[in-house]
Amino acid sequence: MRLLKELDQKDPVEVGGELHAFASRLYPICRSITGDGIRQTLAMIQKRILLKIFEVPTGTEVFDWTVPQEWNISDAYIKDSRGRRVVDFQASNLHVMNYSTPVRATMPLSQLKPHIFTIPHRPDWIPYRTSYYKKDWGFCLSHNQMLALADGDYEVCIVSKLEDGFLTYGECFLPGASTDEVLISCHACHPSLANDNLSGLTIATALAELLSGRDRHYSYRFLFIPGTIGAITWLARNRENTARIRHGLVLTGIGDAGGFHYKKSRRGDAEIDRAAAHVLQHCGESAEILDFSPYGYDERQYCSPGFNLPVGCLMRSVWGTFPEYHTSADNLDFIRPEQLAKSLRVCAGIFDVLENNRRYRNLNPYCEPQLGKRNLYRSTGGESIGAEINARLWVLNFSDGEHSLLDIAERSGLSFPAIESAADVLFQSGLLEPSDDRSGSASRPEASLPSRSSVF
Amino acid sequence: MRLLKELDQKDPVEVGGELHAFASRLYPICRSITGDGIRQTLAMIQKRILLKIFEVPTGTEVFDWTVPQEWNISDAYIKDSRGRRVVDFQASNLHVMNYSTPVRATMPLSQLKPHIFTIPHRPDWIPYRTSYYKKDWGFCLSHNQMLALADGDYEVCIVSKLEDGFLTYGECFLPGASTDEVLISCHACHPSLANDNLSGLTIATALAELLSGRDRHYSYRFLFIPGTIGAITWLARNRENTARIRHGLVLTGIGDAGGFHYKKSRRGDAEIDRAAAHVLQHCGESAEILDFSPYGYDERQYCSPGFNLPVGCLMRSVWGTFPEYHTSADNLDFIRPEQLAKSLRVCAGIFDVLENNRRYRNLNPYCEPQLGKRNLYRSTGGESIGAEINARLWVLNFSDGEHSLLDIAERSGLSFPAIESAADVLFQSGLLEPSDDRSGSASRPEASLPSRSSVF
Amino acid sequence: MRLLKELDQKDPVEVGGELHAFASRLYPICRSITGDGIRQTLAMIQKRILLKIFEVPTGTEVFDWTVPQEWNISDAYIKDSRGRRVVDFQASNLHVMNYSTPVRATMPLSQLKPHIFTIPHRPDWIPYRTSYYKKDWGFCLSHNQMLALADGDYEVCIVSKLEDGFLTYGECFLPGASTDEVLISCHACHPSLANDNLSGLTIATALAELLSGRDRHYSYRFLFIPGTIGAITWLARNRENTARIRHGLVLTGIGDAGGFHYKKSRRGDAEIDRAAAHVLQHCGESAEILDFSPYGYDERQYCSPGFNLPVGCLMRSVWGTFPEYHTSADNLDFIRPEQLAKSLRVCAGIFDVLENNRRYRNLNPYCEPQLGKRNLYRSTGGESIGAEINARLWVLNFSDGEHSLLDIAERSGLSFPAIESAADVLFQSGLLEPSDDRSGSASRPEASLPSRSSVF
Repeated sequence: MRLLKELDQKDPVEVGGELHAFASRLYPICRSITGDGIRQTLAMIQKRILLKIFEVPTGTEVFDWTVPQEWNISDAYIKDSRGRRVVDFQASNLHVMNYSTPVRATMPLSQLKPHIFTIPHRPDWIPYRTSYYKKDWGFCLSHNQMLALADGDYEVCIVSKLEDGFLTYGECFLPGASTDEVLISCHACHPSLANDNLSGLTIATALAELLSGRDRHYSYRFLFIPGTIGAITWLARNRENTARIRHGLVLTGIGDAGGFHYKKSRRGDAEIDRAAAHVLQHCGESAEILDFSPYGYDERQYCSPGFNLPVGCLMRSVWGTFPEYHTSADNLDFIRPEQLAKSLRVCAGIFDVLENNRRYRNLNPYCEPQLGKRNLYRSTGGESIGAEINARLWVLNFSDGEHSLLDIAERSGLSFPAIESAADVLFQSGLLEPSDDRSGSASRPEASLPSRSSVF
Repeated sequence: MRLLKELDQKDPVEVGGELHAFASRLYPICRSITGDGIRQTLAMIQKRILLKIFEVPTGTEVFDWTVPQEWNISDAYIKDSRGRRVVDFQASNLHVMNYSTPVRATMPLSQLKPHIFTIPHRPDWIPYRTSYYKKDWGFCLSHNQMLALADGDYEVCIVSKLEDGFLTYGECFLPGASTDEVLISCHACHPSLANDNLSGLTIATALAELLSGRDRHYSYRFLFIPGTIGAITWLARNRENTARIRHGLVLTGIGDAGGFHYKKSRRGDAEIDRAAAHVLQHCGESAEILDFSPYGYDERQYCSPGFNLPVGCLMRSVWGTFPEYHTSADNLDFIRPEQLAKSLRVCAGIFDVLENNRRYRNLNPYCEPQLGKRNLYRSTGGESIGAEINARLWVLNFSDGEHSLLDIAERSGLSFPAIESAADVLFQSGLLEPSDDRSGSASRPEASLPSRSSVF
Repeated sequence: MRLLKELDQKDPVEVGGELHAFASRLYPICRSITGDGIRQTLAMIQKRILLKIFEVPTGTEVFDWTVPQEWNISDAYIKDSRGRRVVDFQASNLHVMNYSTPVRATMPLSQLKPHIFTIPHRPDWIPYRTSYYKKDWGFCLSHNQMLALADGDYEVCIVSKLEDGFLTYGECFLPGASTDEVLISCHACHPSLANDNLSGLTIATALAELLSGRDRHYSYRFLFIPGTIGAITWLARNRENTARIRHGLVLTGIGDAGGFHYKKSRRGDAEIDRAAAHVLQHCGESAEILDFSPYGYDERQYCSPGFNLPVGCLMRSVWGTFPEYHTSADNLDFIRPEQLAKSLRVCAGIFDVLENNRRYRNLNPYCEPQLGKRNLYRSTGGESIGAEINARLWVLNFSDGEHSLLDIAERSGLSFPAIESAADVLFQSGLLEPSDDRSGSASRPEASLPSRSSVF
C-alpha cells in the first residue's frame, strides 16, 4: 500500500476543495459532547465511510467518570425591552455556553452580566465556552455586543434540555492483514469551530476513504468522539483491545495556515513518533516536534500511565497559542483548502511509513554486490552517483536484519520513499530478503485478505 | 520538612546581615590546617550548633598521608634598620606564609628577598601562601610594600611553633528518620579570607541551625575541617560509615557577587547533581553546571575512585578564576549579605528536593481522574489551565512508580516546589499513594523521631 | 612504541620533502586496477618496505564479483588530417579512458565525439574516466582541446591490451607482540593523480617504514590495492583473518591543503573512531568528523554488513567536494610537502593512541595519594597547578580499572600524550598498576619479540 502514490494521482486543488467543502457542510451544526449535533455530524460522515455508531447511556461509569446527561438545544436569545433579539443562537451557536441549562427569565442587565462571556481585547469575536460538569447557563457575546447593551431589563431564553440519554460516538474499522491496529482519533464535540476540529474530522474521513479498498498491512480504527469523556468512554469499553494498538494519531487543528506540530507520545520514541518526525522533516513545510506533555487533546487519555499507548498528536498551530483558538474567528476562512490537502498528504506519508517499514537482510553481505552487472549502477566511473544509487548503497549496507527502512532513512537523511524504492528494486533483483514476518497475525486468517507479499 | 518555607518567613535582609556578621566575627582569626586558629573558629560555631570537636594526634597515618605537626603563631614582623615594623603580622595574618617555621634573624634585603612573595600585577594586594609539607618560612607582602624596602639590614621575626600536637575538626550530626546521610563539608583552614571560605562556614552553620528541630528524613552530617588533610583524616576514620552517604555537598566561595557554579560529582548523574542543577536552573540567578574534574576542593577526596561518593561542590565564582582569589582582596567587602542569603536559599532548596523527592503511584492510572469533581480543576472550559493544574496533570501522568518528583520536575520544566505541592494535593485527595518506602531505615527505630508520614 | 617521538626527531621540512619526492616518482606511471602500472608502483614501494606481491588470476570469483581481465596500454593518440597528434597519451595518461579497449580507426569528428569526455566549466583540465566493467573506449580532453578540433577526419589509436592475466596487489605485514591487527589500506589504481591517491600510498609507505623495527604491540597490515575490486579480492581471500582486525584506516586524499576529515566506521564508536577524533581535535588544524555513509573508498567493503570491521577513512578534502577531484588538476602541485608531513604526524599520533591505550588501577584509590612527598606536586600552596600535575590527578582519579587512558584524555580534554606521560610517571612511582593484560596473545610466543613491559 502506497497512499501517497494514490493521492498524488489526484489534483491537489480538487482534493483541497473537497476537504474544505465537507468541513463547510459540517460547520453550521451545533455539536456538543452529547446530543443530536454529534449524531447529525456522524450521520454525514457515515455517508462517506463505513461508520458504526455507538450510544452509551447516561450514568454509565467509565473509569473515574460518569457519562453525563444528554444536552440538546433548539433556540436561545436575549431580547431587549423592545423585544428585539440582541443576541441570537440562530446567528451563531457559539452565543450559548455549551451545556447551558434551560432558562427563561427577565432580568436587569446587572443580573445578566455574570452570565455573559466576552473577549475584551478581541471586541468582534465571540468566545467559545462550556460548562459540562457544573450546571450553569451563559451567553457568549462579542465584546462590542455587550458594550451596546443599555441598562434595562432583558428577556433571557435558552431552550435546551439536559436529560438522561446517551453519549454518541462513531467508529470506522478497516481490517488489515494484521490484527495490529493504527488508531486515529479526533474530537467531534465542538460546535461552529472550523480548525478545532472540523479540520480533524475532515482529514480523518478522507484518510478512511483513501484506505478503503487498499491492501492494508495494519488494521485501522478511526474514532469520531467527543473530547475527553468520549476518549475515556471508548477506552473504558475497549480496555482489552488497546493492546492491539501499535500506532496512533490524534488529529486536531490541521487546517490553518500555520506550520506543522507533532506532539510525541508519552513514550517519546515510539515508531509513530519517529515516522511522524521523519515525514514532517521531509514535507517541505515548517514543522516542529514537541515533547509529550499531559495537557492537550485526547492523547491525554491514550497516554495516561495505565495505557501509555503509542499515540501522538498531529496539529498545525498548537491549540491555545493562536488568537482565533476557541473563538468565532476559527471559522471557515481560517482553514484553507491547500493546507487541508497538505495535511492529508502528511498523514498519508506517515501511514506509508508505518505500512512499509520493515527489515530486510542483504543476501550478499560480504562486500558490496556488483550493482553494475545488474544494471543498478552508473557505467562510467568518475562521475558522482545519483540519489537513487546512493539510496541503494544505504539499504544494502544497513539491511542486516536489525535496521528497519525507517532506521536507514533517518540515518541516511534520505526520505522514506527513496529508501523504500531502493529496497523494492534490490528485493526484485534478489539482493534482499525480508527478515521480519509481517504476513499477518495468528488471529486473522491471511486468506481472507489480499496477500501482502504481492506488494513486492 | 520544607526549609524554604521556614526560611522565607524571615526577612532576607536580616538573614543576609546575620550571615555576614558571623563571617565578620570569624574573619580576624589566623586559621591554619592545625592549631588554635581552627579551634577558636570551631568554638564560635559550637555556640550556635551542636558541634563535636575531634583532635587527631600528629603522626596518625591517614591513608597515604600523615597528620602533620601542629602550627601556632603569636607574632611576626620585619623591622627596618630603624626598628620600625615595615611588615606586621598584627596588621594582617596573610603577611606570614602559613606554616612558616620560627625564625629570628637579621639579614640584608638580598638574603630576605627569596622569602618574600608578592603579586606584581596587583601591587596593593597581599598574596596567601602556605608551605605545609616543606619546612620553610616566608613573608607575603603587597608588591608596593616590597618596592618600598630600601637596601640594608632587616630584623626578621616569626614567633611560631611547629610541634607534635593535633589536627582539629568539628562535626555536627543531625539524625533523621533514615540513617542515610547528607554530607556537607567545608574547609575551615584559611586565615583572613572571606569568600574562601568564611562564606562556606557561615552558610553551613546557618543550614545546620535551620535543620535543627525539623522533621528530617535524612540524617545530616556537617564537617568543618582543614582542607585536603582534614577530609583525608575524616575519611580514614570513617571509612565504613561512608556507605551511608547518599548525597553530599562541598560548600566553598559562595558569598561573592558572581553567578552560581555547581561542579558535579564524579558520578555525574547522582541525585545531588540533578537536584542542584534543578534548583539552580530555577533560582533566578545565572548558574552554570560544571563537569567533575579531579582538581578543586575536598570533593577531590570524597570523589576519589575508592570512595566515589555522590558529593558535588557548590560555589559562586570558581576558585582560581577571579583575581581576588587567595589574596587580601578576598575580604569582608568581597562577600555580600544578599549573596550569602541567596546562597543559603539555594542550599535550602536543594535539601528540600532531597528530602521530598519520592515516587508516587497514580491510583487512577487509566485515563485522567476527574479533577473537576474534586474541585481540583477549573469549572468553565475554554480558558487555559493555570500552572497549578498543569503541575497536577504532570504528577498524575508520570506517577507510575518509576518517575520521582524530581524526574517529573525536570521533564515538565516546572519547579520542584510546584510539582511537590501538586503531589501533596493529589495525595490528600486520595489520588496518589507513595510507591517507595521512606519511613526510615532498619537501624534507627522510627518511634524515636517524629513520623515522616505526618507530612502528608 | 611512541611514533610521534621518533618522527619529531626529524626535520619536518625534510620529512615533507621526502614524502613529496616519492609521490613525484610514482606520478608518471599509468596505473589501473590491473596491469603493469600497478606492478611498477608496487615494485617502487617494495624498495622501501617489506612488501609481498600477490597476483590473482583473471576470472577468480571474489564474492559477487569476478577478477577482470588485465589491462595494459603502451600508446594512444588522436591524429588530425595532417597527421599531427592533437591528443597524445604520452603527454598525459589521463587522455585515455582507463580500461579502453584497443582501437585503430579513422573517423569523422561527429563519430569521434561520443567517445570524448571533457569538463566544460573547467576548460583547461582533463577529466579522469574509467570503464572497467563495460567494454568501451574513450578519450579525455581539456574542453579547450576539444573546441580546437576542426571538422574533418581523425585517426584514432589506442594501443591497449585487455586479456586474461592477473590482478596485482601488495601487502606489508609487520608482526607485533599481539596477533591483533591494525589494517591500513590505500588504493593504488589511479593513474597520474596526486592527491587521489599518491598521497595515500606515500603516507602508508612512510608509516610502514616508521613502524619497522619498533617495539609494536599490534601487528600491522598495509594493503596497496586497486580500489573496490582489490579490497573485495583481498577480503575474499582473507575472510577468516579479518577477525584479527581490531582497528583500521583507509588513507586517501591526504596531501592537499584542505583540513582533515575523518569518516567514522560503520560502528561509529570503535576505538579507531575515538582515537582518530581525539588526535584530530588536538592536531592544531581544522578537522571534521563525518558519520559513516556507504559511498566512499574501500571502507565501503570493510564496513559492508557481513564484515562490519572497525575501519574508518582519513582524508583531507573529501573526494568529490573539490574541483580538482578526478581531473588533471590533481597534480603534484595540488599536494604539498608540509601537508603530507602533517598527515603523517596525525597517523603516527593515532597509532600512538592505539598502541598505548590501556587501563590502569590506582593503587591508592582512597583519597589522593600524597604526590608532594614523591616530588610530583608543587611545593608552595596558593599557586595554581600546571598541566602536568593536572594530568596526574586525572589519571589517578579515573584509573579504576574501567577507564582507559583514551577515556581519560577525552573526559579531561587533555591530549593523549599528556595523559599517557602522566600515567608513565605515576606507574614509575608505584602509584598505578596496569589492569589489562596486553603482554601479547596466546598464538604468538612473547619471547620472540621485545617485551612490551619494558616500555614502562
